[in-house]
Amino acid sequence: MSLIVQKYGGTSVGSAERIREVAKKIIDYRNQGHDLVVVVSAMSGETNRLIDLAKQLSDNPRGRELDVLLSTGEQVTIALLSLTLAQMGMPAVSYTGSQVRILTDNAHNKARIMEIDDKNIRQDLNQGKVVVVAGFQGCDENGNITTLGRGGSDTTAVALAAALKADECQIYTDVDGVYTTDPRVVSEARRLDSITFEEMLEMASLGAKVLQIRSVEFASKYNVPLRVLSSFTEGGGTLIAAEDPSMEQALISGIAFNRDEAKLTILGVPDHPGIASQILGPIAAENIEVDMIIQNTGHDSTTDFTFTVHRNDYQAALTILQRTAEELGAREVNGNEKIAKISVVGVGMRSHAGIASTMFGSLAKENINISMISTSEIKISVVIDEKYLELGVRTLHKAFNLEQAPA
Amino acid sequence: MSLIVQKYGGTSVGSAERIREVAKKIIDYRNQGHDLVVVVSAMSGETNRLIDLAKQLSDNPRGRELDVLLSTGEQVTIALLSLTLAQMGMPAVSYTGSQVRILTDNAHNKARIMEIDDKNIRQDLNQGKVVVVAGFQGCDENGNITTLGRGGSDTTAVALAAALKADECQIYTDVDGVYTTDPRVVSEARRLDSITFEEMLEMASLGAKVLQIRSVEFASKYNVPLRVLSSFTEGGGTLIAAEDPSMEQALISGIAFNRDEAKLTILGVPDHPGIASQILGPIAAENIEVDMIIQNTGHDSTTDFTFTVHRNDYQAALTILQRTAEELGAREVNGNEKIAKISVVGVGMRSHAGIASTMFGSLAKENINISMISTSEIKISVVIDEKYLELGVRTLHKAFNLEQAPA
Repeated sequence: MSLIVQKYGGTSVGSAERIREVAKKIIDYRNQGHDLVVVVSAMSGETNRLIDLAKQLSDNPRGRELDVLLSTGEQVTIALLSLTLAQMGMPAVSYTGSQVRILTDNAHNKARIMEIDDKNIRQDLNQGKVVVVAGFQGCDENGNITTLGRGGSDTTAVALAAALKADECQIYTDVDGVYTTDPRVVSEARRLDSITFEEMLEMASLGAKVLQIRSVEFASKYNVPLRVLSSFTEGGGTLIAAEDPSMEQALISGIAFNRDEAKLTILGVPDHPGIASQILGPIAAENIEVDMIIQNTGHDSTTDFTFTVHRNDYQAALTILQRTAEELGAREVNGNEKIAKISVVGVGMRSHAGIASTMFGSLAKENINISMISTSEIKISVVIDEKYLELGVRTLHKAFNLEQAPA
Repeated sequence: MSLIVQKYGGTSVGSAERIREVAKKIIDYRNQGHDLVVVVSAMSGETNRLIDLAKQLSDNPRGRELDVLLSTGEQVTIALLSLTLAQMGMPAVSYTGSQVRILTDNAHNKARIMEIDDKNIRQDLNQGKVVVVAGFQGCDENGNITTLGRGGSDTTAVALAAALKADECQIYTDVDGVYTTDPRVVSEARRLDSITFEEMLEMASLGAKVLQIRSVEFASKYNVPLRVLSSFTEGGGTLIAAEDPSMEQALISGIAFNRDEAKLTILGVPDHPGIASQILGPIAAENIEVDMIIQNTGHDSTTDFTFTVHRNDYQAALTILQRTAEELGAREVNGNEKIAKISVVGVGMRSHAGIASTMFGSLAKENINISMISTSEIKISVVIDEKYLELGVRTLHKAFNLEQAPA
C-alpha cells in the first residue's frame, strides 16, 4: 500500500458533474488500496469572480484581505468534494491551509511554504479517511490566511507529498502529460513516459505550462516523484523524477519555445570591467526580469551587449537602455519585439556531442537565421525571427526524431 | 468614546454598491469617535447558492463539511468590506470566526458559542482599526469550523458585544425597528422607541421576525443593549434593553401573531394522573414541537385535551393522536389547520389588571370566537379562526391605543 498525493486543478473540479467524476476517480484509486491525500483548486472561474467583486470595491485589491477573499475558492471545493465522497460512501475530511497547518511566511498573495504539520492528516489517514486539502493557501505564524499566488495548488500538493514522504504526487490537469513539444505546432509531438526534474524545469521555464515551475523545484529538492495526468482521459501520464542512470535516455526530451520575449542590444559600449552591471543595474531596479544575456567583444575596445526581456517590458527597458547608452557613451541602441526563442532540452546532451551542430545545421538548412545562442548543461536555446517559430520547432522535432519513442 | 458592535445582514451587504454604502456608514460612525467592531453576514443569495451546489452532490448536505462550505459566505464579505474600508482610507482588519477565536461546541450546523477570545480584537481597536468579523461561524476546540445556524450572525454580534463589554450592539436590517404589530396588517402600527428584552422575546417567538430569538436571549443574559435599525434609512431604530423602572411603561407594547399553527383535540379521555404525558409522549418522540397546551376537566371522569403544533406537522401529529386515542379508549379526535394565534405582549400587564378583559371584550364585540387561551406574566395569547386574524389584530391594536406613543 502506498501513499499518494493527488492534485486536481480548477477545470477538473469546475462543476458539480466534474466534482462527481473526480470523486469516482478517488474512490477507484482508494479501492486499489492506496492512502490518498487530495489537493484541490478553486472551481474554474471562481477566483476570477472573486477578483472581479474585489475590483468593484478597491482600485488595487491586494495584501492580507485579498488572501482572505481568494482562499474561500478552494474552501468551497474541499467541502463539496468531501460531501460528495461521503455521499458515495467514502469517509473523507477536509482541511483548509490553516487547519492543516501549512505554515508560510507572511508575504501575502505570494507566500512561500515554510513548514507543514502532518499530525492531523496522518491521524485521519490511519482511520481510513480520504484527506481533502485546499491548495494555494496557508497561514503565517500569527494565523493570518496567506495564498501562494496563482498556480500555487501544485506547490501545495508537492509540499504535502514531501512532508508526508508520499510515494508519488499526481497532478491531474487538462492535458494527459508532458509532450516532446506543443502538439498544436507539431502534430507528431509525442507524450513522454518520463522526464527528469531538470528537463522539466527547463521545459517549464521555457513556456511549457503544464506545471508551475516552483512545484517542480520543490519536487526536485525533496525528490518527490511527480506524475502529470489528465482528469478527463485514462492513461499513465508523464512521470517526472530524478535521473535514473539505468534508464536509456533519449538525447533530447523535448523542444520548448516562447514568443513572449523581446531583444535589446546596446552597441559600441566602451569595454571595461563592470560594464554588464552598469547596463543591467537600471533595468533590474525597475523590476524588469532579464532572460538571456550575451556579450561579444567588438572592435576598437568596445563591446556589444544583447539581452532579452518579457515582451510587456520592452518599451520600458528600451527607454532605460537609451538613457544608459548616453551615460556610457555607447554608439547605438536597437531592439526587436518580433523574436522567438526555441530550446532543445535533454539530460542526454551531457554525454553526447553533436547536439548543437545538429540543431544549428537543421535550422540553417531551412534558412532560419539565429540571432542569439545560449546554452546550459541540458539545454541549447536560440533566438530567431518570430515568423520562423513554427517552422523551426517542426524542423528540430524531426531532426531529433522526437516523434519516435527512444529504443 | 464608546465601543459599538454593529451587525449588517445579508441584504445590507448584498452587492458591491451596498457594501460601499455600509462602509460609508461605518466611517461616519467611526468619525464620531466610536470604536467599532462590525459583524457581517454572507451577501444575500450566497448561502443559498452554496447550498444548491451542495445539494447537486449530496442528498443531505450537513455536518462538518457543510460548515466548511457555508462559512465561506461570510469570509467573502469580511474581505470585501475590509478592502472597501481601506480603499476609503479607513484602516480595517478582518477576522473569520476561527481567527477571532469564537469557540463553540461541536454541534455542526447549529453550534453554540462557549467563549470568545477578545485579545486580538482589542489590540486592533487600540491601533485605531475597524475590526470586521464574520458572523454565523466559529470553531470547536479542535479547530473544526462550525456554524451557528441560520440567523446566527445576530448571535455573533451580541456575543462579541458581551465579550467586549460594548456599550451597544446595533443590528442593521431591512426594517427600521420593532413595531407595535405588523404594519402590513395594521397601517397605524407604530415603531417602538424601546422595548424590554422579555417583551422582545415574546414578540420574536410569536413570529415578529426582526431578530433571532437566541440573540435576544443572549443580550438579555449579558445585559447588552441591543438596537435594531435600518441599513437603508436614517432613524434611531428601537432599543431593546433591560426594564427600566424609572420609565413610564405602556400597558401593552405590541400585538404579535402567527398563522403557522394547527390545533388538535382529543376528547373524552379517561382522566387519570399521567394522561398528559401519555398523549404528548408519542408526539415528542417524533420530534414534533408542541406550543400551546390546554386541558379541561370534562364530565363522567373524562377530560378533553387540546394542543397546537406547527402546521407542517399537523398530519403526522393527527395520525399519532388517533393511534393514542384508540389505546387510551378516548371518545374522539379532531383538529383544525385553519387557526391563528394572536398575543398581546407587555411588561406593563404585570402591574395592571384588566388587560385580559379588554382583550376578550374587544374580540367578542367583533364576534370573534376564542377557542384557546394561554397566559404568561407578560403575554396573553388566544387562538381564533384564521379568517379573523387581520380583524382581530386591528381590533386589539386599537383597543390598547397602540397607534399612540405612551404619554
